[in-house]
Amino acid sequence: MPKDGSVTIALLGAGNVGGGVARTLVEKADAYARQLGRPLVLAAVLGRDPSKPRPYVDPAIFTTDAARVLDDPEIDIVVELMGVEQPAVDYISRALAAGKYVVTANKQVMAKHGPRLLALAAQNGVDIFFEASVGGGIPIISPLKRDLIANTVTAISAIINGTTNYILTAMSREGADFGEALRRAQELGYAEPDPTNDVEGEDARYKLAILASLAFRSTVRPEDIYREGITKLTAKDFRYASELGYAIKLLAIARAVNGGIQARVHPVLLPADAPLAKVDGVLNAVQVEGDLVGRVNFQGPGAGSLPTTSAVIADILDAAQSIIGGRRAIHVAEEAPGRIIPMSDLYTRYYVRLTVADRPGVLAQIATKLGDAQISIASVIQKEADPASNTAELVMMTHEAHEASMLSALEEVEGLAVVQEIGNFLRVEEQ
Amino acid sequence: MPKDGSVTIALLGAGNVGGGVARTLVEKADAYARQLGRPLVLAAVLGRDPSKPRPYVDPAIFTTDAARVLDDPEIDIVVELMGVEQPAVDYISRALAAGKYVVTANKQVMAKHGPRLLALAAQNGVDIFFEASVGGGIPIISPLKRDLIANTVTAISAIINGTTNYILTAMSREGADFGEALRRAQELGYAEPDPTNDVEGEDARYKLAILASLAFRSTVRPEDIYREGITKLTAKDFRYASELGYAIKLLAIARAVNGGIQARVHPVLLPADAPLAKVDGVLNAVQVEGDLVGRVNFQGPGAGSLPTTSAVIADILDAAQSIIGGRRAIHVAEEAPGRIIPMSDLYTRYYVRLTVADRPGVLAQIATKLGDAQISIASVIQKEADPASNTAELVMMTHEAHEASMLSALEEVEGLAVVQEIGNFLRVEEQ
Repeated sequence: MPKDGSVTIALLGAGNVGGGVARTLVEKADAYARQLGRPLVLAAVLGRDPSKPRPYVDPAIFTTDAARVLDDPEIDIVVELMGVEQPAVDYISRALAAGKYVVTANKQVMAKHGPRLLALAAQNGVDIFFEASVGGGIPIISPLKRDLIANTVTAISAIINGTTNYILTAMSREGADFGEALRRAQELGYAEPDPTNDVEGEDARYKLAILASLAFRSTVRPEDIYREGITKLTAKDFRYASELGYAIKLLAIARAVNGGIQARVHPVLLPADAPLAKVDGVLNAVQVEGDLVGRVNFQGPGAGSLPTTSAVIADILDAAQSIIGGRRAIHVAEEAPGRIIPMSDLYTRYYVRLTVADRPGVLAQIATKLGDAQISIASVIQKEADPASNTAELVMMTHEAHEASMLSALEEVEGLAVVQEIGNFLRVEEQ
Repeated sequence: MPKDGSVTIALLGAGNVGGGVARTLVEKADAYARQLGRPLVLAAVLGRDPSKPRPYVDPAIFTTDAARVLDDPEIDIVVELMGVEQPAVDYISRALAAGKYVVTANKQVMAKHGPRLLALAAQNGVDIFFEASVGGGIPIISPLKRDLIANTVTAISAIINGTTNYILTAMSREGADFGEALRRAQELGYAEPDPTNDVEGEDARYKLAILASLAFRSTVRPEDIYREGITKLTAKDFRYASELGYAIKLLAIARAVNGGIQARVHPVLLPADAPLAKVDGVLNAVQVEGDLVGRVNFQGPGAGSLPTTSAVIADILDAAQSIIGGRRAIHVAEEAPGRIIPMSDLYTRYYVRLTVADRPGVLAQIATKLGDAQISIASVIQKEADPASNTAELVMMTHEAHEASMLSALEEVEGLAVVQEIGNFLRVEEQ
């Protein structure tokens, strides 16, 4: 802190979000100073290309030299907005070790290194804030840390990837197939040229690791989370789901089950009147269930420069208040590490769409295979018959079943001579 | 604080919420002590009737003598759950003056005396927390104080009265009239025997005063807020609104308009696909619009002993962390007081339902009266004709108009010989 008592900030990263944060700190400097009772000064910006125009960054504070920022004793708060794992995690570690507060929007860093970085912050009497790492501008990290702290959290169910929610909404509304909806999302800038991280659920997995670790006061690593993307969904699945009274959403789910934690990212059938079923387009939503509060739901824009800026600056102001108020950072104690329950131990209902020979006795053969595995059929509808190939399409909903049994039973079913193909199978969330 | 470093709490009020808080503090004592690093001790409970059984309250700490609680220097945090204005506001003032932190769930106290109590807390180096005063267990006070602080809030739109939302949902789903839906709500315990405070919007007005004061960093008093209840709504209005693509909700709205604040509680027509239109039953929801974040939406149970307990204990733990960490309470600076914009200056669209003589030329007479007041009709539908009385029912939607002009024009319209009755008129929120 400089001698005049102002709180000094360095930004690592001067891209889209960095630009929004720099601009807002300049434009709202008076308002933030009034709230804090001290000036908040942007003292350094680390970027790669000094020649790029940055209207809100005084050239005198721009640098390409990380050491100049990290080793400057006058910097109080380091704001990491680089968005990649390295060197971000090293820079954050150095800043914490030097007794600086850190604010980061980096989901990959927090998902993979969060517990170690939080411990490092605690050792150095500072804190690391990461509200912007999940859900853009939606307050969710701070509500889990503070507002819902009295609860034992029992479940989190979240739509935390705007790209996939946009694609699924388009598929649902327009009857589009996946490829078509993806192309549209790419044209509109809602999907990357290489959409793998989003459509395969990797992005949602990082975010769920952060939420679950916080909610269960445990360590849930990305690799502990079952992951399945949305690429196999077809227009037919949406049509049939809708006829059955369900929407299809990519949910990130973490649940306390039998003293363990079950965490998974995959498409689900969700009753059409469930609050999360009504969250459309690029919106994000996080539903938290606690033993006291019941269900609370946080919705809003999950990405974008200004919504992310909203979360980053809230964290900066929180860090600044700690510095000014001399508050000792309070670190939420980690409970005994939760046992991760493997996906094969899931119990849920299933939707199965399959193409079969169009003749009597077929359903009996399928039901027998499922029955042998203790899986009972709740309903079955013949959807379409194709006289040319003499096949029919069946849609089945099962009662609650064991995932491992379901997978092996489906293999058996697929082996039946009368079964041409299992078109898709999806898990059902009864919320 | 006793010498062993534990943080001590006194509850004022041992009713429904007080019981939930006492029970949870006992049942979860270990978990909360782990989070804080110190025990959290319930040291006193003030109630009226010592003979009433209270399984989670040690009789040795029960008292009917307020002074015993308020004058005890070992009490760190006073939790006010009495739910009436007096003597609650006096007790809170005494506790703050004595340097104790205060947690309250009292909307009436905070709506009417919030600014004075916050100033008193600041003078005494402590703080007053009131998360449970609005929206039960939904985090909304703390998000406005912390998570959205980087924003200039432009609007709040909220469903913050579960009783009326339950009644409106029943009227919408079942075609019930107000009286019928109210009786059902009373039978189910969702409405009080005397429902006036809820159905006339008084409860929502208190809560909006709290939210608007915080969001606009100003003082918005209950009497600054226009209020209109739901008692005049009929099954017909729901039917016509639905045909036009709208839901009817009781919204509490506060908006920054031309450097002033417009605040109002009344039923509105809301596009059926707006997020708030989908909030049904006793659920509450608060939508906040900020210049950075866009729109965020917080939903959940707005009442009930355990959801309220969730919010109260979060505040208790926050206060306890301040006491332990030696944090100086940071008080959000109040901006220049906002000018309250009178309801007569509202510009919005209107829905008008009226019964008229069923003969040619009637609409021309009505349109002329409206046109004289600069109000233009967007659409008009003749809904029902009654040959017996030779009358017809018209439903009109206007373009945006000035409330004062609209009211005087409607008086003129009502004076027309061809107009039998103005059945209802409702404002439209295009969200």
